[in-house]
Amino acid sequence: QHIPYSSQRYSEDEMIRRANEFYQLMNARRSVRFISEEAVPREVIDSIIRTAGTAPSGAHTEPWTFVVVQDPETKHQIREIIEEEEEVNYKKRMGKKWVSDLKQMRTHWIKPYLDTAPYLILVFKQIYGILPTGKKTHYYNEISVSISCGILLAALQNAGLVTVTTTPLNCGPRVRVLLGRPENEKLLLLLPVGYPAKDATVPDFKRKPLDEIMVSV
Amino acid sequence: QHIPYSSQRYSEDEMIRRANEFYQLMNARRSVRFISEEAVPREVIDSIIRTAGTAPSGAHTEPWTFVVVQDPETKHQIREIIEEEEEVNYKKRMGKKWVSDLKQMRTHWIKPYLDTAPYLILVFKQIYGILPTGKKTHYYNEISVSISCGILLAALQNAGLVTVTTTPLNCGPRVRVLLGRPENEKLLLLLPVGYPAKDATVPDFKRKPLDEIMVSV
Ligand SMILES: Cc1cc2nc3c(=O)[nH]c(=O)nc-3n(C[C@H](O)[C@H](O)[C@H](O)COP(=O)(O)O)c2cc1C
Ligand SMILES: Cc1cc2nc3c(=O)[nH]c(=O)nc-3n(C[C@H](O)[C@H](O)[C@H](O)COP(=O)(O)O)c2cc1C
Repeated sequence: QHIPYSSQRYSEDEMIRRANEFYQLMNARRSVRFISEEAVPREVIDSIIRTAGTAPSGAHTEPWTFVVVQDPETKHQIREIIEEEEEVNYKKRMGKKWVSDLKQMRTHWIKPYLDTAPYLILVFKQIYGILPTGKKTHYYNEISVSISCGILLAALQNAGLVTVTTTPLNCGPRVRVLLGRPENEKLLLLLPVGYPAKDATVPDFKRKPLDEIMVSV
Repeated sequence: QHIPYSSQRYSEDEMIRRANEFYQLMNARRSVRFISEEAVPREVIDSIIRTAGTAPSGAHTEPWTFVVVQDPETKHQIREIIEEEEEVNYKKRMGKKWVSDLKQMRTHWIKPYLDTAPYLILVFKQIYGILPTGKKTHYYNEISVSISCGILLAALQNAGLVTVTTTPLNCGPRVRVLLGRPENEKLLLLLPVGYPAKDATVPDFKRKPLDEIMVSV
């Protein structure tokens, strides 16, 4: 059945102020590839995953599993899988153009942050659900899970934590088996989470201005 | 070149407080299919699109175009295209199972919110970029644009506005032509935006608890 819905209502001035303040907060986000070993309260991570779980999803399927890895040994095994595959990606699979498009980021197949970050969040999309009566279709699962990650990134930024959104090419099956996840789950993103390292740097680039991303009709 | 990066640092208590507060805010979000005709300041919408544009993207390609439709005539033309296609979707293309999975939502091919919402935001993914020197590959464009929509939804909720995330099946090409968007852009999502209507209702369902979406290692 359906229930009444009303949302928090702000004055127009307050809406403008809140919108601009949230923009400032989000615009300070960067992908950080140098993450400090410092501990981060687990309660914050739990809250952030809960927040990701508020995302909309096609037909309310909630097709996401967030595996939070804190165990150093498992983090290191993940690092080994990813560095092995990424070396092949960079040297063979990605091709010259892709590797050159990434030059500015100075990304590399050596990824110390996979050991140093206090948490690795591995985001799996459930390509179908499993019910006692059989398979449950998960409409638009990749879009839903990616939207949920957008909300997760906003929550991290709001808490003063950093990550780098990564898509470990060709690592999904081995990581899935390592973590004992079922076959209906596919690795979509890997997010190392923590405070930035003291000497963290980021590529010095700009974002497109509003008139390059918005069209008004 | 690279530049130093540091993030806003909060005390542990402050992080926990901020994380929980943001969870409360996001958890109050619902997909609302009854949208008021009341005007919403354009400045808020601009700020929200700017916020969406802070999202990460594969190789910093920023592969998104947000078309904000405020013109009543164009909104109505979009409604006509969508209702025509959605009627066929519900009656033929989606199949009995899909239609039955949507029963709880009481969604329908008649969508008055496409006229009443003061804004329609049509989110296009650029499947490749166009440079003077040729095509530019947009790695992971659908994931990037979906992440950016997650941040957009967070920004709407933060401002006290509502939407329903929709994927108008089979409407992309006609809507693209109506809006005069180029061939490298594909419609990904349509978001009607405004205040909820006075008598808005939502399906009464729950979200999965933390232990059904998070696995700890
Ligand atoms: C990728 C995606 C596609 C969706 N497509 C539609 C749609 O076409 N029509 C619709 O009414 N709702 C659509 N929804 C909204 C979902 O039905 C809604 O998010 C879900 O029922 C959960 O409800 P909530 O958003 O209120 O938490 C979509 C959501 C997502 C994430
Ligand atoms: C879908 C997606 C995949 C990405 N994959 C990687 C990756 O595998 N490795 C990496 O270092 N960065 C990756 N990134 C991060 C982007 O390079 C980064 O978001 C972009 O350069 C913009 O920088 P910013 O996030 O600091 O604004 C990815 C981002 C997205 C959205």
